Amino acid sequence: MTEQPTGGDLSRLRQLNAVAVMRALRDDKPLTLTELARRTGLSRASTEDVARELIERGWVAEVEPTVGTVGRPARRYRFRADAGRVLGVDIGGHTIRALVTDLDGEVLHTSTVAVTPQLGRPERLTALDRCVISALAGARVTPGQIWSTGVATTGLVDGTGRVMLSDSLAEWTGVDLAEHLRRLVAAPVRVENDGKLAALAEAWRGVARHAKDVVFLLAGVRTGTGLIIDGKLHRGFGNAAGEIGALPAAGWLKAPDHLRAWSGGKDEFEDVFQAARDGDRAAVTAVRRYTRDIAVGVSALVLTLDPELVVIGGGFSRSADVMVQPLRDQLDRWCLRTPEIRISTFGGEGVAYGAVRLALEQVETALYEGTELPSATMAITAGRK
Amino acid sequence: MTEQPTGGDLSRLRQLNAVAVMRALRDDKPLTLTELARRTGLSRASTEDVARELIERGWVAEVEPTVGTVGRPARRYRFRADAGRVLGVDIGGHTIRALVTDLDGEVLHTSTVAVTPQLGRPERLTALDRCVISALAGARVTPGQIWSTGVATTGLVDGTGRVMLSDSLAEWTGVDLAEHLRRLVAAPVRVENDGKLAALAEAWRGVARHAKDVVFLLAGVRTGTGLIIDGKLHRGFGNAAGEIGALPAAGWLKAPDHLRAWSGGKDEFEDVFQAARDGDRAAVTAVRRYTRDIAVGVSALVLTLDPELVVIGGGFSRSADVMVQPLRDQLDRWCLRTPEIRISTFGGEGVAYGAVRLALEQVETALYEGTELPSATMAITAGRK
Repeated sequence: MTEQPTGGDLSRLRQLNAVAVMRALRDDKPLTLTELARRTGLSRASTEDVARELIERGWVAEVEPTVGTVGRPARRYRFRADAGRVLGVDIGGHTIRALVTDLDGEVLHTSTVAVTPQLGRPERLTALDRCVISALAGARVTPGQIWSTGVATTGLVDGTGRVMLSDSLAEWTGVDLAEHLRRLVAAPVRVENDGKLAALAEAWRGVARHAKDVVFLLAGVRTGTGLIIDGKLHRGFGNAAGEIGALPAAGWLKAPDHLRAWSGGKDEFEDVFQAARDGDRAAVTAVRRYTRDIAVGVSALVLTLDPELVVIGGGFSRSADVMVQPLRDQLDRWCLRTPEIRISTFGGEGVAYGAVRLALEQVETALYEGTELPSATMAITAGRK
Repeated sequence: MTEQPTGGDLSRLRQLNAVAVMRALRDDKPLTLTELARRTGLSRASTEDVARELIERGWVAEVEPTVGTVGRPARRYRFRADAGRVLGVDIGGHTIRALVTDLDGEVLHTSTVAVTPQLGRPERLTALDRCVISALAGARVTPGQIWSTGVATTGLVDGTGRVMLSDSLAEWTGVDLAEHLRRLVAAPVRVENDGKLAALAEAWRGVARHAKDVVFLLAGVRTGTGLIIDGKLHRGFGNAAGEIGALPAAGWLKAPDHLRAWSGGKDEFEDVFQAARDGDRAAVTAVRRYTRDIAVGVSALVLTLDPELVVIGGGFSRSADVMVQPLRDQLDRWCLRTPEIRISTFGGEGVAYGAVRLALEQVETALYEGTELPSATMAITAGRK
């Protein structure tokens, strides 16, 4: 029994096919037509047709045949990561960081500007502008060549890119970051909480990339979180998921006091972690008490979600080797099942990578849904190649 | 540019089409061919083809044309909810409940058997058997006519249907409920925690059916939970999600002590809720203190997930009118955003409905994936019609 699909069925099939080819090429090295057809489950004819269309649209390129191939060399196709550029920005209390990457997330340039949590709003925005302009210049791209921008900030962020609540940065509640950044870059700008984006980075290319459900801790003077549920960042109904630190019973607000007691009241903690590593008894006790307080809130997250992994990232992640065992001991005490605990390998760059990922997600949405990307950007001649 | 899809493309398209037609008919009243084609986006020819195949397989029936229709009456199709039967069982501390339903979840018969938490394992399993046999007899179906069985129990359950941990039912840890029930019903048997299944029932046909993210409380002498995330039941990596009650800081273990203080130490609480409703000052205080303790754990869940809804179900749900305001006051105090709070309308039957839903999910999976259902069951002549 054969059947000729109608126009409606065919155009749906066509779109599915284009998405399948793009995904296969994004996820892999260059593929021959035969490989691509096998990977996508499409016929050779359909695959060739889709590939031709994607080349016309600038997303896919043919690759030169490998030298030394025996017989007639097969054509190969690759995703054109250099077709566009994205920008990822992390606005932290002490550092603003901007990354320009290609569509594979390969970093072309990084800029950082030092700030303080006490800086006023205009001064922080000026530092932000300086950092972004420097990153664009360093990557040799114009603002119009940025296809998409992701921004990370401390605090709660609404769906339009405005900071709803920030109690750690001065004069930051109410600032409309999306609007502000659209003065510098024309393309879509999305803003998200820093803990959420650092979690996204771990799920994308970090230690959580093979895990479905993850509790991520942005551990520092303040503790933030990001939750990966079923492989996706969980935002919540009002974009306020993961804020368990606000509950006094979670123990996170007072936890750093144990470290401060050692450091003489200062919020500089590298020394106490180093001393604990060297076996200093008072430092070991301070770190254990800090971890015991943090562990109550972490246990609440773990008991709620039963994740596969707990990931420690953020400023303290470089010192997390001395935290892992005390944390595991406490989780063993409170939880029904203690998940694996891993330390982020991004150091201080996890949040910025997450912002890049947020920007790339916008590009992929546009790509897979067939919506238009900023038209000016199709004419890029890659600045660095 | 037209193109003839190959065999592989076509069979994939065919399966998608069958699923689209089944979903449209399951979700709606009987539909004409024209309506069905519009709903699914398929061509008339494809739709008719799929409908014919589904009729042959027993899933779909043609409906008699409406009397009095002007002109030649159009054929209409309906999903055959009477094609099979499912069984849902709730094994609680005080009641075992079994429902037999059709494939729409319409209840054909309910049986209940009274038990106690102290009952030993063999006695509880005997009571379970009695309840199931009575439900099958009441619905006039043979064990072989049950396509799928869902079972709810207190405690943690593993993926094979064994109770990993139960501290509220005597001798219950380690019992293999799936194996036990397969002696009575041949079809697939799945077992799940009662709080999780009651949450599933709310998302299916309860007060949470339009919500994406839900914190469900199975409120009773013990407090359980179920989490709906992104419209789906969240189980967790080890199927242990939602167990925040295990954390002493959550306040759930000691919360009922406030009610017991009023009831003279007994675990019978209808009177204290009624007295609070009537304005008895000591009862109002007892309920407020109970709610204040419960609210710490609920706040942890809300701050973690930022759900759209909190739903109160379980044994206390009939009395929850006196709990809602004190709970809201506490959530306002601890949470960044207090979600809407709603009371389940299932009374004591929510868990059993959830078990039915679990059974129906298995049927749907088989249906949509094209896997075989037990062959004997295709020959049902509906017992009750």
